[in-house]
Amino acid sequence: MAAKLSEKAVELLKKPVLAHLATIMKNGTPQVTPLWIDTDGTNLFINTEQNRLKAKNMRRNPNVALSVVDPQNNYNTLWIQGTVIDMDAKNGQTHADTFAKKYRGLDKYVNTDSADVRVKITIRPDKVAGSASK
Amino acid sequence: MAAKLSEKAVELLKKPVLAHLATIMKNGTPQVTPLWIDTDGTNLFINTEQNRLKAKNMRRNPNVALSVVDPQNNYNTLWIQGTVIDMDAKNGQTHADTFAKKYRGLDKYVNTDSADVRVKITIRPDKVAGSASK
Repeated sequence: MAAKLSEKAVELLKKPVLAHLATIMKNGTPQVTPLWIDTDGTNLFINTEQNRLKAKNMRRNPNVALSVVDPQNNYNTLWIQGTVIDMDAKNGQTHADTFAKKYRGLDKYVNTDSADVRVKITIRPDKVAGSASK
Repeated sequence: MAAKLSEKAVELLKKPVLAHLATIMKNGTPQVTPLWIDTDGTNLFINTEQNRLKAKNMRRNPNVALSVVDPQNNYNTLWIQGTVIDMDAKNGQTHADTFAKKYRGLDKYVNTDSADVRVKITIRPDKVAGSASK
């Protein structure tokens, strides 16, 4: 069930903040890694390479969680439990470019390996907590 | 199986960095929240209140994961998969006081509620990745 993002949540996610994404491994244990994030006010968008462990985990199990802390104020936080509702490789590179702009001021996202395939991942927030949630 | 922490990992964990801890909910989905962290060079130590959701999750399921990013250098990272091997309420408050010193320069950790019971949690790292892992 979708949860609504507050104005403060959207404001935080529009900043060039790091999100820490938890996915579930095949054996049911968690994995967490940092990544870039954005939102359209309703869903969350992240981007990764299609063969990364987190991508494999999300293809198998769409249940994820995210933690975001404002680097300017460690008490401005978001803790989100959500569901992966789309994994889009077609628009993955274009989406990575928007992240390069947001986080680095660059027009293009340069892959470490030219064979990399970027995937745009859409996450529906199901439960939102933390100080920026209201 | 315990994984060894590198010198760079210990150096990062000794800084006043935030860790993002993933625990597993009763229904198998992940939860992630930020918290303070320390290490003795072998295990990781975190601290929480005994009735927090993350504490309940760890009592039921000791499988956790942690993500740490150096605020001075976002490419200095640790991604740890680990196991909770001890939850110690007896020394929880004293341990919280060491965190107040490390993160705030204060002698005492002041609980938001006087009835709070702090728990010192020991996590054995089983798998360590990220740039500071080597």
